[in-house]
Amino acid sequence: MPRYKLTIEYDGAPYCGWQLQPNLPSVQGALEAAALATCGEAVRVHGAGRTDAGVHALGQVAHVDIPKPFRADKLRDALNAHLRPNPIAVLAAEIVPDTFEARFSAIRRHYRYRIANRRSNLALDLGKVWRVPKRLDTDAMHRAAQVLIGKHDFTTFRDTECQAASPEKTLDVLDVVRDGDAVDIVTNARSYLHSQVRSMVGSLVWVGEGRWTADDLAAALEARKRSACGPVAPPEGLYLMRVDY
Amino acid sequence: MPRYKLTIEYDGAPYCGWQLQPNLPSVQGALEAAALATCGEAVRVHGAGRTDAGVHALGQVAHVDIPKPFRADKLRDALNAHLRPNPIAVLAAEIVPDTFEARFSAIRRHYRYRIANRRSNLALDLGKVWRVPKRLDTDAMHRAAQVLIGKHDFTTFRDTECQAASPEKTLDVLDVVRDGDAVDIVTNARSYLHSQVRSMVGSLVWVGEGRWTADDLAAALEARKRSACGPVAPPEGLYLMRVDY
Repeated sequence: MPRYKLTIEYDGAPYCGWQLQPNLPSVQGALEAAALATCGEAVRVHGAGRTDAGVHALGQVAHVDIPKPFRADKLRDALNAHLRPNPIAVLAAEIVPDTFEARFSAIRRHYRYRIANRRSNLALDLGKVWRVPKRLDTDAMHRAAQVLIGKHDFTTFRDTECQAASPEKTLDVLDVVRDGDAVDIVTNARSYLHSQVRSMVGSLVWVGEGRWTADDLAAALEARKRSACGPVAPPEGLYLMRVDY
Repeated sequence: MPRYKLTIEYDGAPYCGWQLQPNLPSVQGALEAAALATCGEAVRVHGAGRTDAGVHALGQVAHVDIPKPFRADKLRDALNAHLRPNPIAVLAAEIVPDTFEARFSAIRRHYRYRIANRRSNLALDLGKVWRVPKRLDTDAMHRAAQVLIGKHDFTTFRDTECQAASPEKTLDVLDVVRDGDAVDIVTNARSYLHSQVRSMVGSLVWVGEGRWTADDLAAALEARKRSACGPVAPPEGLYLMRVDY
């Protein structure tokens, strides 16, 4: 039974998140329904990252074992045909060895968080960015972000429902970049805790608004308690960009 | 009565177009409703370009005379507050002389048409681009586009309902640029005929698909008849980017 690696784009808005939940629309559920329609058997689609409700992906990765052999590009096209009108697209499919596991073989996850730093309503980017009206000091945000780089106990930036065995993670990149009104927070690491990126982004916005200094951010990290965290940024600005293997 | 110049962004999808139509939602109608709510009197909002149903704008311009004096930034904020939840945003408001006319003072209009040149479904860009599955030869499209530059009778590329007195227009820029799967057709001119940009784009896509040569495009222009035009590109890829004065 061949194993396929899928690269997937989706708009997270209509879904309860990546993961299957009873009676709720999920990205995983839509993909499994498309796979069932394609090959006539129920199969499990395993994702690299369980994105939360409303979080988007430009490069989520999943693996799936398909009981019938398909040419990889035919499988991609068939899944896409059955996915419509879901805002989910299989960008690529390739046959991989049975040892490939989307979640456990991943060595790096890349996320981008996009802020529209403007007073005006959102129009074309509605649901795709977080609008922050107050002018952000992105240089200060970038400098402060560097205190989070490296191996730390990230309990402060971890959802209370996080199921990871350890709160220790190694953060490799956390850059804050402005391009006009668009502020991107670009990050990568081997893996993240639940809500870690959005928790870091919300706290960095406090730095950008002048409510926190870099020292306040460092103190929040040191506190190792959830109540020390700033606000959690909303899901609509977050994109899973790429997963490396 | 002070006159204000408004710079406006909108998602064209929910609207019958810029222009007011009885019993249909229009961008102009939403702005006039917001202006009425702001100043308590019915006012007319005059746009620089009457974008069609489904066409977007990142920099539409309009003027409006407001019976009560407002600071320009307060007017912008009040209009935005009353525009919600419409996907319409007033990006800027400024006081201008009474001689300023959004439509008639304009000396140049800039449009961008965005194509997603990919086989996969659209997900995050649904409603924001035209998906063309077949690989486009964008170099051939760009070269062919140059035959349309200059002053011509554009009858071939003009909607049969176009109300302009003359079919002659002067096209200054028509560039085709690829960035990965994104193909942008960037154009500017003093003014355009009704559906001119979408008609040119659809014909250029025929060139990119190899159905037409540059000579075929030149012959279509020379024919000066609507039936010689290629397909009309759908509205969701078109953006009014900027208007110069």
